[in-house]
Amino acid sequence: MTKTSARSKIVRGAKRAHYDRDKLNQVLDAGIICHLAYNYEGAPIIIPTGYVRENDTIYIHGSLKNRMMNSILDQKEACVSVTHLDGLVLARSAFNHSFNYRSAVVFGKPFKLEDTKEKDRVLALLMENILPGRWDESRVPTEKELDSTMVIGINIEEFSVKIREGGPVDDKKDYELDVWAGELPIVHQYQQPVPDAQMNKDLSIPKSVRNALKE
Amino acid sequence: MTKTSARSKIVRGAKRAHYDRDKLNQVLDAGIICHLAYNYEGAPIIIPTGYVRENDTIYIHGSLKNRMMNSILDQKEACVSVTHLDGLVLARSAFNHSFNYRSAVVFGKPFKLEDTKEKDRVLALLMENILPGRWDESRVPTEKELDSTMVIGINIEEFSVKIREGGPVDDKKDYELDVWAGELPIVHQYQQPVPDAQMNKDLSIPKSVRNALKE
Repeated sequence: MTKTSARSKIVRGAKRAHYDRDKLNQVLDAGIICHLAYNYEGAPIIIPTGYVRENDTIYIHGSLKNRMMNSILDQKEACVSVTHLDGLVLARSAFNHSFNYRSAVVFGKPFKLEDTKEKDRVLALLMENILPGRWDESRVPTEKELDSTMVIGINIEEFSVKIREGGPVDDKKDYELDVWAGELPIVHQYQQPVPDAQMNKDLSIPKSVRNALKE
Repeated sequence: MTKTSARSKIVRGAKRAHYDRDKLNQVLDAGIICHLAYNYEGAPIIIPTGYVRENDTIYIHGSLKNRMMNSILDQKEACVSVTHLDGLVLARSAFNHSFNYRSAVVFGKPFKLEDTKEKDRVLALLMENILPGRWDESRVPTEKELDSTMVIGINIEEFSVKIREGGPVDDKKDYELDVWAGELPIVHQYQQPVPDAQMNKDLSIPKSVRNALKE
């Protein structure tokens, strides 16, 4: 059960706001890195990091020695933001320029995964979100590697989603101006893979990479 | 003068850390949206927003009616994060997978621009950072539009920069495994512009857009 409070209620641009879980999941599941904010000595710090969503939880991971990971666990609440910049919206007036985007902001309590098998399972999910199929191609983690990795879950307790799409909206009288207006879409694409120079065998490009290039 | 404190000192992955201003400026100037965190009732909130850097200041803008903009001004300090995801780093072991990225995190005191001419100048800079040349193609802001826009500067008081580039680093014994390893670069590209359906004249694609497509 999630709630909407003053801070997650979108006042400006309310027509672009969504509070349904399907929209949230769509935005979260389309991304591979998030920005996470937590408090440190009373001031916010942001870190960018990989993530995956499963049901009502966002998972991140890091080294057990990472002081940031430990600070995150001290929080009553962290904030996770996922943003997809889809394009520039070019209006006739400078004032009405905008971005097209899909943005999710989530608030929730961080908790630590203690069980080694569960950590292993979630790390596989994390990689599956970043590059589907890669986990099964790689050497699986050892007990020692799992022990040195901290996996943190953040329960989705509150959230807001904002989406803007389509062309510019200008002031009525500006439509007469001789100014080109429209959208300049942005895409994020994988380029041809660069094999590791230290690969001493002639290995073919794996399925995970081939699939990613097809997208 | 900027300083490095415990929170901006990078402990993990210290070999990827930079504290010089040229590196910071390179990372900041390569981006068009940042994530900004501020405190609201004791918990951090992140908003993604357009920005520009000039000298020691990062500028953002928003509606005067935007409660977030007002909350940011109440802060002793805000955190601004700019992240460029440059690729996936595919190692032989699941454990040694990584991202290639350029990331800057900046801390500073937000302040409000009061002077209308200065606001106008900074808004032009903001657009210049997002799409060079577009400001001069658009209808300039009216006094009323400038009055309804809040421009916030954030002095760069502390910062850290992290950059990872190049191929994977695997454990020595893993190099013998028959696992393809390398980089999968990510690029962010503009696609062909979509003219506004409400454009009733046959206007040619402007120089700002043509230049962006050449990049």
